[in-house]
Amino acid sequence: MKVIELNKVATASNDRDAAVLREELKARDLFLINLMSAAGSGKTTLLSRTIQDLKGQAPIGVMEADIASDVDAAAIEHLGARSIQVHTGGCCHMDAAMTRASLDAFDAGETRIVFLENVGNLICPAEFDTGAHRKVMILSVPEGDDKPLKYPLMFSVCDVVLVNKIDVLPYFDFDLEKCRANVALRNPKAKVIPICAKTGEGMDEWIAWLKEEIRIWKG
Amino acid sequence: MKVIELNKVATASNDRDAAVLREELKARDLFLINLMSAAGSGKTTLLSRTIQDLKGQAPIGVMEADIASDVDAAAIEHLGARSIQVHTGGCCHMDAAMTRASLDAFDAGETRIVFLENVGNLICPAEFDTGAHRKVMILSVPEGDDKPLKYPLMFSVCDVVLVNKIDVLPYFDFDLEKCRANVALRNPKAKVIPICAKTGEGMDEWIAWLKEEIRIWKG
Repeated sequence: MKVIELNKVATASNDRDAAVLREELKARDLFLINLMSAAGSGKTTLLSRTIQDLKGQAPIGVMEADIASDVDAAAIEHLGARSIQVHTGGCCHMDAAMTRASLDAFDAGETRIVFLENVGNLICPAEFDTGAHRKVMILSVPEGDDKPLKYPLMFSVCDVVLVNKIDVLPYFDFDLEKCRANVALRNPKAKVIPICAKTGEGMDEWIAWLKEEIRIWKG
Repeated sequence: MKVIELNKVATASNDRDAAVLREELKARDLFLINLMSAAGSGKTTLLSRTIQDLKGQAPIGVMEADIASDVDAAAIEHLGARSIQVHTGGCCHMDAAMTRASLDAFDAGETRIVFLENVGNLICPAEFDTGAHRKVMILSVPEGDDKPLKYPLMFSVCDVVLVNKIDVLPYFDFDLEKCRANVALRNPKAKVIPICAKTGEGMDEWIAWLKEEIRIWKG
């Protein structure tokens, strides 16, 4: 089989900007999480339930990045969380400069935990460091357990993989153990947590992971 | 709700390259189809079945664009179709220059119909004209019927929307009529064909559409 290799995207200057932003946010005691997944994997549903589960403990802010539309930010605002809708103007990912501009426009207030819901895409968001302190990715059951083989960078850069929509496991050829093995191939350190954001299954483990990471970050 | 608008990607020079390539391919009597969808929507399964359904009538060539891996091209080659694996080197889409380089490396032989299986992504592939004569997109049921609202450009540029995985409709909040209405909002001319590439349901209508478009193109 013939294979042709095309060029690599240059991201060096973005990496420098992201490192600077990450330090600035640490100094402001603002924990930023970059939430990534393909379109339709359940990012907004996860955030909605996370906001509710942490109600009264830790107020969460959300920056919803989208090509267009404000479907997601409207859903988040409905829950009483601080949110801002970011229109990327056709761009398929957020980079450090775009994240900085969004944070400047976002009024964090008392919020000390901010989720950046990245554009629904398994590729470019993985290449562009946003300056976030942790990278969370969602892989939903209908997408298939082979995704870590096909989108290696995304699975290499993330700190945790939430396997969402496990309520429909009986209807798909999705092998949870094969998925764990495929993730481990790319990233032995990544934690894999099976969840169903719709029903709440597995949310306890996700919330515990999040709290522990914030504790470590605070140092 | 606060909204921040970021910059638009520039694609003007690519549009010129694509128009030139499209004319050149027409002169060579080579019909190029740009097949787009999110990751895991069933592009390779659709192509496998399309190759089998057209066996003996029209030999199909396939250029499989991926960030990495050759999972898809290996599956296609197994069916006896001409194929080439294109590694985009981290890039999330194919543009006209990349398509030209791939076609140069691909030995079309007697093949007069070539599918470019674009990178799994609902965003950038929509922005970059590859020089193809038709754009086909797959939306799978688990992704949700609201995708035309969230990825307007993809649904605006495509000629046909194949709604795949209709065998799992009973397990998802996916309204086929709402989906049709959402597609029509973006693109009243796009044909919507519900299919299940795995079971073969709806494939007749898709194959008929393809043959008719080739007939129109030949003029």
